[in-house]
Amino acid sequence: MEGQKKIGVLTSGGDAPGMNAAIRAVVRTGLHFGYKMIGVRRGFDGLFKGDVVDMQARSVSDIMHRGGTILLTARCPEMMDAAGQDRAAAFCKEIGLDGLVIIGGDGSLHGAEALAARGVNVCGIPGTIDLDFECSEYTIGFDTAVNTGMDAINKIRDTSCSHERCSVVEVMGRNCGQIALWCGLTSGAEEVMIVEDRSVNTESIIKQVIANRGKGKTHNLIVVAEGIGGSAALAKEIQRVTGIESRATILGHLQRGGAPTAVDRMHASMMGYHAVELLMKGEKNRVVIYKDGKYADLGIDEAFAVRRVYDKRLYDIGKILAV
Amino acid sequence: MEGQKKIGVLTSGGDAPGMNAAIRAVVRTGLHFGYKMIGVRRGFDGLFKGDVVDMQARSVSDIMHRGGTILLTARCPEMMDAAGQDRAAAFCKEIGLDGLVIIGGDGSLHGAEALAARGVNVCGIPGTIDLDFECSEYTIGFDTAVNTGMDAINKIRDTSCSHERCSVVEVMGRNCGQIALWCGLTSGAEEVMIVEDRSVNTESIIKQVIANRGKGKTHNLIVVAEGIGGSAALAKEIQRVTGIESRATILGHLQRGGAPTAVDRMHASMMGYHAVELLMKGEKNRVVIYKDGKYADLGIDEAFAVRRVYDKRLYDIGKILAV
Amino acid sequence: MEGQKKIGVLTSGGDAPGMNAAIRAVVRTGLHFGYKMIGVRRGFDGLFKGDVVDMQARSVSDIMHRGGTILLTARCPEMMDAAGQDRAAAFCKEIGLDGLVIIGGDGSLHGAEALAARGVNVCGIPGTIDLDFECSEYTIGFDTAVNTGMDAINKIRDTSCSHERCSVVEVMGRNCGQIALWCGLTSGAEEVMIVEDRSVNTESIIKQVIANRGKGKTHNLIVVAEGIGGSAALAKEIQRVTGIESRATILGHLQRGGAPTAVDRMHASMMGYHAVELLMKGEKNRVVIYKDGKYADLGIDEAFAVRRVYDKRLYDIGKILAV
Amino acid sequence: MEGQKKIGVLTSGGDAPGMNAAIRAVVRTGLHFGYKMIGVRRGFDGLFKGDVVDMQARSVSDIMHRGGTILLTARCPEMMDAAGQDRAAAFCKEIGLDGLVIIGGDGSLHGAEALAARGVNVCGIPGTIDLDFECSEYTIGFDTAVNTGMDAINKIRDTSCSHERCSVVEVMGRNCGQIALWCGLTSGAEEVMIVEDRSVNTESIIKQVIANRGKGKTHNLIVVAEGIGGSAALAKEIQRVTGIESRATILGHLQRGGAPTAVDRMHASMMGYHAVELLMKGEKNRVVIYKDGKYADLGIDEAFAVRRVYDKRLYDIGKILAV
Repeated sequence: MEGQKKIGVLTSGGDAPGMNAAIRAVVRTGLHFGYKMIGVRRGFDGLFKGDVVDMQARSVSDIMHRGGTILLTARCPEMMDAAGQDRAAAFCKEIGLDGLVIIGGDGSLHGAEALAARGVNVCGIPGTIDLDFECSEYTIGFDTAVNTGMDAINKIRDTSCSHERCSVVEVMGRNCGQIALWCGLTSGAEEVMIVEDRSVNTESIIKQVIANRGKGKTHNLIVVAEGIGGSAALAKEIQRVTGIESRATILGHLQRGGAPTAVDRMHASMMGYHAVELLMKGEKNRVVIYKDGKYADLGIDEAFAVRRVYDKRLYDIGKILAV
Repeated sequence: MEGQKKIGVLTSGGDAPGMNAAIRAVVRTGLHFGYKMIGVRRGFDGLFKGDVVDMQARSVSDIMHRGGTILLTARCPEMMDAAGQDRAAAFCKEIGLDGLVIIGGDGSLHGAEALAARGVNVCGIPGTIDLDFECSEYTIGFDTAVNTGMDAINKIRDTSCSHERCSVVEVMGRNCGQIALWCGLTSGAEEVMIVEDRSVNTESIIKQVIANRGKGKTHNLIVVAEGIGGSAALAKEIQRVTGIESRATILGHLQRGGAPTAVDRMHASMMGYHAVELLMKGEKNRVVIYKDGKYADLGIDEAFAVRRVYDKRLYDIGKILAV
Repeated sequence: MEGQKKIGVLTSGGDAPGMNAAIRAVVRTGLHFGYKMIGVRRGFDGLFKGDVVDMQARSVSDIMHRGGTILLTARCPEMMDAAGQDRAAAFCKEIGLDGLVIIGGDGSLHGAEALAARGVNVCGIPGTIDLDFECSEYTIGFDTAVNTGMDAINKIRDTSCSHERCSVVEVMGRNCGQIALWCGLTSGAEEVMIVEDRSVNTESIIKQVIANRGKGKTHNLIVVAEGIGGSAALAKEIQRVTGIESRATILGHLQRGGAPTAVDRMHASMMGYHAVELLMKGEKNRVVIYKDGKYADLGIDEAFAVRRVYDKRLYDIGKILAV
Repeated sequence: MEGQKKIGVLTSGGDAPGMNAAIRAVVRTGLHFGYKMIGVRRGFDGLFKGDVVDMQARSVSDIMHRGGTILLTARCPEMMDAAGQDRAAAFCKEIGLDGLVIIGGDGSLHGAEALAARGVNVCGIPGTIDLDFECSEYTIGFDTAVNTGMDAINKIRDTSCSHERCSVVEVMGRNCGQIALWCGLTSGAEEVMIVEDRSVNTESIIKQVIANRGKGKTHNLIVVAEGIGGSAALAKEIQRVTGIESRATILGHLQRGGAPTAVDRMHASMMGYHAVELLMKGEKNRVVIYKDGKYADLGIDEAFAVRRVYDKRLYDIGKILAV
């Protein structure tokens, strides 16, 4: 159609369950309001390689319940420097994009900002399992990752209880302890180690395990965030000092996949809808957020200015409840 | 222990996944702060029958991940009249309860109010899968019920797609369409029928199914809330008019059970903690709520004054995305 | 390719989880051995309508874990009479099929036999959740259907225990009680009603429920096979006579869908492989079976001659274990 | 009761999902036939420590669906030498055991044999996730472990596909590749490495990955059995040689836990029943097996004489289907 407006969509950075639901929402909302919709493949890389596809309503059928991203994702080092950013922005203009929705984490938002600075109308959607997007109370994928971690820990607990072992389970989260805190509290973990609070360490954990033995607890569960790491060494040290057989399990990429939960499908759908709505209103440089239990949006520069505040209550209440 | 303060806890009304996590949180928080904890069995009925048990930290071990409620629940008609309420309040005083946590739905909160009016310090926690507690943005059990419904619908869709049928699926929710709206949006349902909006009816649905056939859709999914009902008749009518084979499934009590999701365990744990905290502060007549993405509390009378506002956006966006 | 041999594959009758894994196995085995592979859509109907598609290795990518059948399925009344069977056989010859794999239940095998009688080389694969294919110890879909039923019953039990109710759960199985017996035994049901044994009836069940109350059991689970039906009436009658609140749930088509279990993927893969192997050997009229724990095959006429023998031990042991 | 006969039951070695179902079946069958039932805790260790408990019908309520073993399990070095075996047998006589059911793997059966040689009537039940009990076509826990592995691999695949990575997943199985072969075939793995066939090695896998790239496959899944190990190194080497990003995940003890599948509950229930039946018949030294699709039994010495034969067909067919 001559003169029809065009919106593109891409997923970037580590994938997260719910990204497909977000793509579906962006594409169908755009089509509903008369836009031509373009999928950019492999994140920003698709802008360099010109790897784009037309998206119809049926292109996103039967994808909402699938993990991963049908548009694929990749790291894209070229997007780190100004020359690359220039080329990417030039391509957006060349194909006539009136807007671009970027679904991803922190790093992806930096790419979005760079494109916005070059005149591309962008709208970000927070998509990362880590819940480490400071400006938003929710990021797509978190709920699925937590439930996957929790279910895996439940299985590990079965066997650890039978053998009266100490289980050390390492969950995702490099810079942010949210997955570990949630997995810990919802699994009744005796301890949780996260980067935000270094006062929980090997020594304090061993003391706790010994105290628990005194209380008659024959099984201990320690959840360790990826950013702390060293779970195999921790298990070994607990066993060496206490004599209690200890085993480490690193859940790893397992937590990135799987069918998204209802919460992830809902947030992804609503955020996708809002992103298109923002671009339709002529916004040029926004990110959709979830704040005070409602969908809202922020300028990308404002988003970066938000500092995360670590709330110790989740940890403290978890400890009281896992007595 | 002479003079030790006592807090009781009961679950009332229809059970909801996460009630056990709430009981665990109430009991362990109370114990942590030095209270003697009492479990009241079978809801308010336990106050009439004197059916109470001491709760220790180990009484609530290994229950967080289980559906149902270890304290059992029951309807209690005696609690409806003043004489019954007097007796229940008298029993609370007789056994020296300094506070009582009541986990349940709307009806349970009325019982709580009646006890408060008779000098029992009460604190309510919203526990019902229906999300129909007007004052709170969350009620324990909703997330599990939605995920259970969504997973069941996914299975039904597999077979309906293979047979190119129209599926009518009835989900829980007598007075409130939240479960239906969420199940519908997260399953990509073509239509959702809820009590809040009677403009969606058999006639409009049949029109939609016929229009969908015109667009090449060979499968339709209609989600119907329990409060609307009549799904078997609806399926029959669709088949009669359109000639498309149609089948109804009533999910029923299936959605009440199952291991609670992470969201339900988290809310239940946090609300249980807050309820005890409120009683410790000397509050006499409160309900814990979730509002603007945060835990808060209200006077029970204030809670009843809140009117639900039906937000049609969820329905509208669901329709746009299920095109 | 000039002169390349061709094998077709279709799914017929009620769909079953694992049918896609069987299609994948048939197609890729055929391709591996140099055949051209043809998918026939909507069961035998595709032979009347000429609705066939070329199948490549990639046509069956990413389908093994999905419920339903990508080739669709339908009832086909035309296949019931000789004229229809003539036309279907003529089409098979017209497109040059050197063999046809038919995945389905009892009825589908009759269609297969009719084609074989008209000179089409056929090989049947037992695909039905009901395990009512007398000649084979396994039929594709049974394990998934049983696990789905068992998981649903587990959820229903949570809520029934909390309310101290009697639960009546109706599972699939029109002529065959295998699903009910397995769901019953693996869920610890107090009673199972199946068509094979009419000595279990409303009266005997009510006696059992009353006896169980005497033993202190506050919850009863009754599994009813679809072929018996009447679960709502049964629940009502139990409640009327015993005063114990009773509820019926009809699982219905839920059990037909869902990702196939490992057992279903394995059997489907092996049976699909064997079917092609049989056609390659020049067999004309066989059905793959599972017998004495091994894959084998029978002439279709021999298959029909096998009479099912109902083994009461499963029921009896289930009763002893559910004491 | 004066003169009542007694049967004991213990679980030994690595735990397996379904052990609880087997304990339940043994206890309730024994009670049904008038025996006094004794649970021995922590495997053979309970015989040394006199750690035994009376088991009633209600002692095994609500356990069939739980992973692990309520009787706990432990390695027991004392049982390795004759002196220890003497003591254990003496304890069995001291408490008047007329029979002892031993649920566990290969090692546990050696313990059983030693007790039998000292006049204790024993009956073994094969309980190990590895399916490495040569004499039986099934060992309790295998089906659950395979489904757990398969589900985890499905999640890993989601994210690996989005990133176009090569995934190396290490599953359980020290001496036996059955779990790996089943997980591989049911997940469509491109390669499976097991101890039974050393011709699949790093070099052959890298060749395969390169060939797959040539065919347009952007994702590869390699399943490695625990007995081969080295999955992290394998992933690194694949990445080094091919340039394709590769990641290893070690599923570990995750596969030991979780609610048992229907197959595991059924086998455990039937084997538990048969074990008691054998002891009732006066058998002194048997093991229950599953052979040719039926429950049967063997003398323990005969059981040890059975040599496993590795059947390469499962691997070969898996390769053809994962083309």
